[in-house]
Amino acid sequence: MDPSQVDVPPLKDLTIENITENVHMINSRTPDPRLKYVLERLVTHLHDFARETRLSTKEWAIGLRFLTEVGQMCTDVRQEFILLSDVLGLSLLVDSIDHPKPPASTEGTVLGPFHTHEAHIESHGSTISHDPDGEPCLVVCTVKDTTGQPIPDVKIDVWETDSKGFYDVQYSERDGPDGRAILNTDDKGTFHFKAIVPVPYPIPHDGPVGKLLKMLKRHPYRPSHMHFMFEKPDYDHLITALYLRHDPYETSDAVFGVKETLIVELGTVSPEQAKEYGVKEGAKLLTYDFVLVSDKEAADLREENARKAMEAQGRKMKFYEGLPVPDVD
Amino acid sequence: MDPSQVDVPPLKDLTIENITENVHMINSRTPDPRLKYVLERLVTHLHDFARETRLSTKEWAIGLRFLTEVGQMCTDVRQEFILLSDVLGLSLLVDSIDHPKPPASTEGTVLGPFHTHEAHIESHGSTISHDPDGEPCLVVCTVKDTTGQPIPDVKIDVWETDSKGFYDVQYSERDGPDGRAILNTDDKGTFHFKAIVPVPYPIPHDGPVGKLLKMLKRHPYRPSHMHFMFEKPDYDHLITALYLRHDPYETSDAVFGVKETLIVELGTVSPEQAKEYGVKEGAKLLTYDFVLVSDKEAADLREENARKAMEAQGRKMKFYEGLPVPDVD
Repeated sequence: MDPSQVDVPPLKDLTIENITENVHMINSRTPDPRLKYVLERLVTHLHDFARETRLSTKEWAIGLRFLTEVGQMCTDVRQEFILLSDVLGLSLLVDSIDHPKPPASTEGTVLGPFHTHEAHIESHGSTISHDPDGEPCLVVCTVKDTTGQPIPDVKIDVWETDSKGFYDVQYSERDGPDGRAILNTDDKGTFHFKAIVPVPYPIPHDGPVGKLLKMLKRHPYRPSHMHFMFEKPDYDHLITALYLRHDPYETSDAVFGVKETLIVELGTVSPEQAKEYGVKEGAKLLTYDFVLVSDKEAADLREENARKAMEAQGRKMKFYEGLPVPDVD
Repeated sequence: MDPSQVDVPPLKDLTIENITENVHMINSRTPDPRLKYVLERLVTHLHDFARETRLSTKEWAIGLRFLTEVGQMCTDVRQEFILLSDVLGLSLLVDSIDHPKPPASTEGTVLGPFHTHEAHIESHGSTISHDPDGEPCLVVCTVKDTTGQPIPDVKIDVWETDSKGFYDVQYSERDGPDGRAILNTDDKGTFHFKAIVPVPYPIPHDGPVGKLLKMLKRHPYRPSHMHFMFEKPDYDHLITALYLRHDPYETSDAVFGVKETLIVELGTVSPEQAKEYGVKEGAKLLTYDFVLVSDKEAADLREENARKAMEAQGRKMKFYEGLPVPDVD
């Protein structure tokens, strides 16, 4: 680089007191107002964290080594940084901010690190879990909008562990996906498939995040649940899960995902249902009526919540591509 | 894990508003008060950052992917997380907090990612840089305490780039260390060696940190400097560097390391010095008188600064192994 092109503001003699404003100054030359705002808040919180804790060089080095190990644990089928975000409550928080739900719509929850893009498209009634040790469970659901109208052609991603609490991708030797599928709602907004009863399982805890949980005397378990993700143009993307009532980890989920409205009690298949769906009478039955919000409903609520939060900060803000940035005019 | 052992406080229905206190609650079962405090501040700042920016799921995913790439860029000879800490001003801040300097002592600065543990111990007068294109530079220094007494037997780590701006470890093919050495002060607290005149160089910017700098329209350059690290029992560990006056990047160091007291003007070797040190008359000469603080001086000043910062937070604190923690009694 040609030194004559250096046109950043002069910086020198940076101290505990003035380093933050100087980092803001040099970072503020990006033309993207959102990047500028996000970086400004990030650097402020990072520096305040160090100042308030009087972070030692030793602790700083431990922290950087930890983050390095988290990054190096990541592979195509394991995302340790999502896991870290999950156990620190950040994932649940970000989902709550970005996908606000009006009353009576289905609440969202954490995606977790085990969603993949390799599930096959299955027809209604398909068996999505082939674990012979799993307890069969018929799943029959509806998808409606907030006015109660069924929504056809919704793409549904569903995934769960096997009876041992492992997702397909956690087995090094495997032939393609299992315990996961993509379905679409029919004209009546319904879908059904054959799965197995979910079981509690630990999040992967043989890596740095597991070590952190151990230091914090936290267990790594998630209560029994089945993941669902809903997509349709004009509807807000819904990432959620259904949890089983009375699970031993119902109130201590390692990743903070459980919500009362997402807890279900399993029923049993009636003689009529057994005939209709081709399953055994008395088998376990999971039913749920999902309610999606429109993109517009979600965007309005997101902006309303953001406005309130910005007012509470006492800062003059405007919206840029739907997200708040300081209003400097 | 036996579910009956779950004795964490009950958590459910976590929201934007209550997630932070719940994460604190579940994290507060560690017996280590310092870990508890550091995690409490970390989670608070992380969550406030997301709440204040209304962080979107897309931005969250970009952030996690970025951190993953930073971790995966790290090798035995490249520490991209230190680089990230450097360009965000965190490294300079942590060094300032942990190694406070009373007036008249030598200021510290960033370690950077290129210190290694493979330098050889050299005797005074050794040539530590063998780059034939480098401009020879004799380095003659003293090390004293804050009362002006010379300190013998100080271990000094020194490292610099070659004339092209690369450290030895940046070459994939190399035979052992170059441009770095370990020396010890003699009875008079002096040391000298033959090096080359430092040149400006870019921090490694072919990775994710380089991409971030580009998005922020920041250049990756560091002004010409030579690194020094001083160790002796009972003295505070000093990590510092000397910078050359009039460098084009003197006021825009990519990692915020320059301090006025650490800037030197190179002199030239006199006829007497040429004879004494066995170098050419008129060659470049770098001299500096380093002043180390004792462990006790540093600890006292660190605690005094921490006390003031804690008072400003309005929180009742005590010290645990020299670092602040909340006083809950």
